Amino acid sequence: MLGEFSVRTDLALEAKESFEEDDVEIRGVQIEESADEEKEIYTTIVRIVTENGAKAMGKPVGNYITLEAPNMSAEDEDYHREISAVLAGHLRKLMGEEEQTVLVVGLGNREVTPDALGPSVVGNLKITRHIVREYGKASLEGVKKLVSAIVPGVMAQTGMETLEIIKGVVEETKPQIVIVIDALAARSTKRLNRTIQITDTGINPGSGVGNHRNGINQEVLGVPVIAIGVPTVVDAATIVNDSVEQAAETKEKSQSIREKISPHLNTMFVTPKDIDETIKRVSFTISEGLNMALS
Amino acid sequence: MLGEFSVRTDLALEAKESFEEDDVEIRGVQIEESADEEKEIYTTIVRIVTENGAKAMGKPVGNYITLEAPNMSAEDEDYHREISAVLAGHLRKLMGEEEQTVLVVGLGNREVTPDALGPSVVGNLKITRHIVREYGKASLEGVKKLVSAIVPGVMAQTGMETLEIIKGVVEETKPQIVIVIDALAARSTKRLNRTIQITDTGINPGSGVGNHRNGINQEVLGVPVIAIGVPTVVDAATIVNDSVEQAAETKEKSQSIREKISPHLNTMFVTPKDIDETIKRVSFTISEGLNMALS
Amino acid sequence: MLGEFSVRTDLALEAKESFEEDDVEIRGVQIEESADEEKEIYTTIVRIVTENGAKAMGKPVGNYITLEAPNMSAEDEDYHREISAVLAGHLRKLMGEEEQTVLVVGLGNREVTPDALGPSVVGNLKITRHIVREYGKASLEGVKKLVSAIVPGVMAQTGMETLEIIKGVVEETKPQIVIVIDALAARSTKRLNRTIQITDTGINPGSGVGNHRNGINQEVLGVPVIAIGVPTVVDAATIVNDSVEQAAETKEKSQSIREKISPHLNTMFVTPKDIDETIKRVSFTISEGLNMALS
Amino acid sequence: MLGEFSVRTDLALEAKESFEEDDVEIRGVQIEESADEEKEIYTTIVRIVTENGAKAMGKPVGNYITLEAPNMSAEDEDYHREISAVLAGHLRKLMGEEEQTVLVVGLGNREVTPDALGPSVVGNLKITRHIVREYGKASLEGVKKLVSAIVPGVMAQTGMETLEIIKGVVEETKPQIVIVIDALAARSTKRLNRTIQITDTGINPGSGVGNHRNGINQEVLGVPVIAIGVPTVVDAATIVNDSVEQAAETKEKSQSIREKISPHLNTMFVTPKDIDETIKRVSFTISEGLNMALS
Repeated sequence: MLGEFSVRTDLALEAKESFEEDDVEIRGVQIEESADEEKEIYTTIVRIVTENGAKAMGKPVGNYITLEAPNMSAEDEDYHREISAVLAGHLRKLMGEEEQTVLVVGLGNREVTPDALGPSVVGNLKITRHIVREYGKASLEGVKKLVSAIVPGVMAQTGMETLEIIKGVVEETKPQIVIVIDALAARSTKRLNRTIQITDTGINPGSGVGNHRNGINQEVLGVPVIAIGVPTVVDAATIVNDSVEQAAETKEKSQSIREKISPHLNTMFVTPKDIDETIKRVSFTISEGLNMALS
Repeated sequence: MLGEFSVRTDLALEAKESFEEDDVEIRGVQIEESADEEKEIYTTIVRIVTENGAKAMGKPVGNYITLEAPNMSAEDEDYHREISAVLAGHLRKLMGEEEQTVLVVGLGNREVTPDALGPSVVGNLKITRHIVREYGKASLEGVKKLVSAIVPGVMAQTGMETLEIIKGVVEETKPQIVIVIDALAARSTKRLNRTIQITDTGINPGSGVGNHRNGINQEVLGVPVIAIGVPTVVDAATIVNDSVEQAAETKEKSQSIREKISPHLNTMFVTPKDIDETIKRVSFTISEGLNMALS
Repeated sequence: MLGEFSVRTDLALEAKESFEEDDVEIRGVQIEESADEEKEIYTTIVRIVTENGAKAMGKPVGNYITLEAPNMSAEDEDYHREISAVLAGHLRKLMGEEEQTVLVVGLGNREVTPDALGPSVVGNLKITRHIVREYGKASLEGVKKLVSAIVPGVMAQTGMETLEIIKGVVEETKPQIVIVIDALAARSTKRLNRTIQITDTGINPGSGVGNHRNGINQEVLGVPVIAIGVPTVVDAATIVNDSVEQAAETKEKSQSIREKISPHLNTMFVTPKDIDETIKRVSFTISEGLNMALS
Repeated sequence: MLGEFSVRTDLALEAKESFEEDDVEIRGVQIEESADEEKEIYTTIVRIVTENGAKAMGKPVGNYITLEAPNMSAEDEDYHREISAVLAGHLRKLMGEEEQTVLVVGLGNREVTPDALGPSVVGNLKITRHIVREYGKASLEGVKKLVSAIVPGVMAQTGMETLEIIKGVVEETKPQIVIVIDALAARSTKRLNRTIQITDTGINPGSGVGNHRNGINQEVLGVPVIAIGVPTVVDAATIVNDSVEQAAETKEKSQSIREKISPHLNTMFVTPKDIDETIKRVSFTISEGLNMALS
């Protein structure tokens, strides 16, 4: 959901990289990398295991899985099926085995193309909760989870915080687990539309340490929350600040130019011109992964 | 919302007419008719004041206002502005004067044209709740009500009953009044897209007497519920049954033919070929009426 | 495209059946039926080979292939893939082997759900003409045809006849073959959304004999025209007339009732309440068939 | 239409400003400014009258009218009506009095929000050509022009150049004038969504001098072409290059950083987060202006 949270939820991988530059090992953080060279899918698992690690990373304790698939925005059905299968595998592990009811939440604004990822994913999901409630389990052969879904919209459309809507629906329908899908902002354009982040910490704006009361997470909703995010934009201010930093001779000059430019940019984002095709493909890949994991 | 409720919510006016044929006055029901011949807007107010009247009409105690505007699906901005103004006047009376927070619910399926009325109306509303909460009342000069809105979708999309979603959101955000917008089924094609029904009884499937626990009404939500409906379809079974009745010599024959035909038709509806233009125009007229009444 | 042509293009299969009732063999018409019981796909090929046959059938000389797939509107990916493959096979035979440029035309109104079939199919096509023109044939490994596509819209949106737009685009871009996709009207609700008709005669309103100058066909466009159609609606007048006919004792009574009812209905159609899901699934099945046949 | 032309069509006003910085008067270019302070609408008319002026400005000979309306993306119906009226006035002057047939072309991609301006404008137009052809002039009281419209889509969707489609439709339907609506790229974010440019030179990619054969203009289409454009994006490369230029001490450093950064950015654009609301409002304002001018 672009722009509703004061500080954007973003990629754990990018937080990790800023440490790597300094070649530091962080206590309380475990990192596990693996590559399927043939399939061209690269996986990084960042496990933040202590509050100390959380402080260092600026993100809550939990698991952060990042799939990098360089050709994810290209048109290749077999490749996309592979990514869906890998995604489904991780989701199954994070969810646990026992029979569950799942609420999938498609965050974002369906009217703004790069922010329409969540609503698009929900549009391709197999929804089963109502069928099973009406006709019984036998009606859906092999269904493992009862799936419900909602597209809450954004504050300008509803006048409500997204969290208010989700809390209300969770309290009323009592799912055992919530999965939120969201478009993210990356720091670099190189990562756009080729990365999927899966985490069991939900969505946590701000520093990620201490108060999580405004997040979409277990603390607030009372049930586990898995978040699936794909970076589809870069904040315009970020992209300009980074290039100014490279260009300016001194920190002072960089600072003064950024102050002059940034105010115009912090309500803007950068996204590729063919974002419509990308959102269509990536959202289909994620919904297929969810359908595999949930049924 | 077409087809979710077992028996369709429909027009009080049509219930009334079936009595008029027999020229009966019903106790506990008051009827008030007025016509603005020049503007071509005809208003019928049916007030059901006793449980007896409710039983006779098959609808709960309350007020049912019907606006008939023969040219409502035509392209005439001035005419539509008149209808919006008349609608706004009735809404103001039903809501009362004191400062209020209002949740508008756009029922129906945005993917099925004649059922997209509710979602379309919400798309043109002035949403103010979040602005006032953030910047204070002064930020919106002359705003009378704080407006929030939701498009809950239909069961096939969400796996949840619409009522579950609305209840959750109402409990979480505590509006003082709820307004639901819905596409209705009429008994006759002659009434399609030229009638607006406004009632303070909410939406009540079934007989309208006794148990109202499955409705979208004050009994269930705990706050007053105003429903605005426009008939956009006729159930296919209705239209066929009516013509068979006219054609068949005997009740038995009529009955036997209806039994043969109806099963194929009760999941189908009849709607005009230019329903896209009609929904666009009528939903704009209703959202303008709401915007007038709420701000 | 619902309602633009004075008499609806419709199913050759239904024309055939009206003869079968009388158990007549028609000269100049060959019929070939086959069933894949396991896959539940039934194929009927009607070949009209003489002008005499054309007159009898009320359709131009040519091939009419009808696939009947009872579960086509159900959610079963494997089944849909089978239908796509069968469709692709027929298309390949109708098109011929040599390298070709193909213009696909998605007829209908994307704003009216049952009429959105054509636009939806085009939305899932692999478009290749511009890539090959820019980067050469080598850029698209294994591409057989250069595919372009257009969604011309309907007259109320464009002010132009669909044929005018198609003629202009064909004359300017010179495709070697045109494929039009259209939503059709069936005579019976039983056939809705489970039948695909493929013909090499294009689209020919009216009796199908004599003057074809208003059709979308080879005579008018100068290149072969294949039409793919799926019945998604029944005209409301048809459904009512049929039931009245069954109910009325005498032809006179039937006639008089039909005259009374029909005028209100000839601008209306009947369609299932879940038409959104059906159009999504069926259009995907057809676009996959096209993608298989064209690349 | 974002990104299809090699060099973006853009604002004559910005070309003018780059001269003003140097306080130069350009021969063959006349500039006329006026302000309606009360209504807050500022008008600049740039008339390029000689080939010399065209060379200096990098744009063809013709009239360029720019309306600046600082609050154009805000929600204020009366203000928008004023802008529509001013736009209609300029259009009437550019078109001439005699009875005309007009083809309106909504350029751009309806699936990418900031590029959906053209398609959105067409969606709100009063289309009259087909009505007048069918029922005669008398059927539309007071109609001045016969209006047809098309949304050609973008090359990735059609496989055809937009110009091919427009040429075909113009040759087939013979309008006397063409009006194209397009989303533009500005050089500065300050100008986004508050500027409307109207020109009688059509759309001319590249330097604007010499060869106009790839443009959408009178030379190519054979009839006058009016273009209405609103800047809705800034190219990402532009925004970064400008800030790097400000920050770098030397031209060499600036050059080297730009070379490093730009390749990633020339397929990206910058746009505001609330672009959905802006497009909705601005497209309505333009279609109202067109409706006023054409009927």
